[in-house]
Amino acid sequence: MNEVISTILNHRSIRHFEDKPLSDDQIKTIVSCAQAASTSSFIQAYSIIGIKDRLKKKKLAELVGNQPYVENNGHFFIFCADLNRHHLIGIQEQKDVKASIESTEKFMVALIDAALAAQNAAIAAESLGLGICYIGGIRNNLEEVKKLLKTPERVIPLFGMTVGYPAKINDKKLRLPFEHIYHEEEYQQNNEIYMQQLKEYDDVISQYYEERTGGKRKDRWTEQMANMLEKQTRMYMKEFIQNNKMDIK
Amino acid sequence: MNEVISTILNHRSIRHFEDKPLSDDQIKTIVSCAQAASTSSFIQAYSIIGIKDRLKKKKLAELVGNQPYVENNGHFFIFCADLNRHHLIGIQEQKDVKASIESTEKFMVALIDAALAAQNAAIAAESLGLGICYIGGIRNNLEEVKKLLKTPERVIPLFGMTVGYPAKINDKKLRLPFEHIYHEEEYQQNNEIYMQQLKEYDDVISQYYEERTGGKRKDRWTEQMANMLEKQTRMYMKEFIQNNKMDIK
Repeated sequence: MNEVISTILNHRSIRHFEDKPLSDDQIKTIVSCAQAASTSSFIQAYSIIGIKDRLKKKKLAELVGNQPYVENNGHFFIFCADLNRHHLIGIQEQKDVKASIESTEKFMVALIDAALAAQNAAIAAESLGLGICYIGGIRNNLEEVKKLLKTPERVIPLFGMTVGYPAKINDKKLRLPFEHIYHEEEYQQNNEIYMQQLKEYDDVISQYYEERTGGKRKDRWTEQMANMLEKQTRMYMKEFIQNNKMDIK
Repeated sequence: MNEVISTILNHRSIRHFEDKPLSDDQIKTIVSCAQAASTSSFIQAYSIIGIKDRLKKKKLAELVGNQPYVENNGHFFIFCADLNRHHLIGIQEQKDVKASIESTEKFMVALIDAALAAQNAAIAAESLGLGICYIGGIRNNLEEVKKLLKTPERVIPLFGMTVGYPAKINDKKLRLPFEHIYHEEEYQQNNEIYMQQLKEYDDVISQYYEERTGGKRKDRWTEQMANMLEKQTRMYMKEFIQNNKMDIK
């Protein structure tokens, strides 16, 4: 196994960091790696906002639902889908790009571009001995996040990423079975096989929790998912995105 | 520079492959790396479909707009946003998850999950000496792709990825300036600085083309983007996504 694959397979989210900031060189390396990712038709439809200011991180930590590691880390990155750049280019080049940049297609392109860049950043950071955690919680309250980061229309903060020197290493979480995620030639047509794979995974996950909590917890994954999805969260999202002139039609 | 960072920075899209299939071990390693990526609240809202069948690859190559490397490669992966799994879980666990899985928020989660997984796959493949190219062209005609892959509702094929032994190595494409992608503390508020950065980047890109074509081409990036975005492409996307019961509200 090479160093790249072992770094990737060794990933776990880190939620406790030493009180030691990243250097500007580290930040630049991580962002350069983000930028090296593929981008749809070279569109580069994302931006990254880095937060050093402790008060701003504290405010963000509150906004995401009181996650202390959003305040206490080596650096906090926020990855944004960004078509503002292309809106400005349209004005400058005197081309009507409105329908394109308001389309669902380009919204998807911007999300995918931002996520590819982010994952490169994550792997690069981990290769430097740093730990990371994605923070989807910034979507809890995007109006406030937008005000704090002063993002214009056509820029959607998608998720944050805490980066820093790990103070506590968690266990890796076991993923769905390979055969369940990976289908060959066509999508799995047999729902019985599909559900059986989930049942086997449930057994693995509940054994994992049982062993780690001395029998106190033995949740199944499907149970966790059903409970989570029964709650409706961030249901303002469509309105927010469309108010920011993306994903309109 | 460590091996991980050099692999990431050395990325370029590969569009010519040797006629040599990936081994099942290679496929499994790549997919395992994809699965090791972070996933929002452990939701794992994606699937990967691998295509070995030559006729199916040929058909897909036509559908994406006659890209021969979609037919001729070592393996063709298709990354899908997938909430079908969670729909089935809702039925099994007798929980009403409909509003959640039809929300824009969960559509975003599924796209981001799939893209994070894909970028891990890309880096893993490159670390094995393989080349990759993302194929957004599968979104040209998702109705046909859906039929070919037999994907159910709530599964959206997002992009393909050709993987294989490189037969021809292209130049790396120069990215936007670091200062333009990366903002500190807040989004760049000065549009003059922002546009000046684009102008400088335009000069770099047009010099790049000029040198590589002996003066025949000297497009600016902003010109490429404006021309591309003036054309409205894949405008059926919202309807397709909503017909497949995602991103509804």
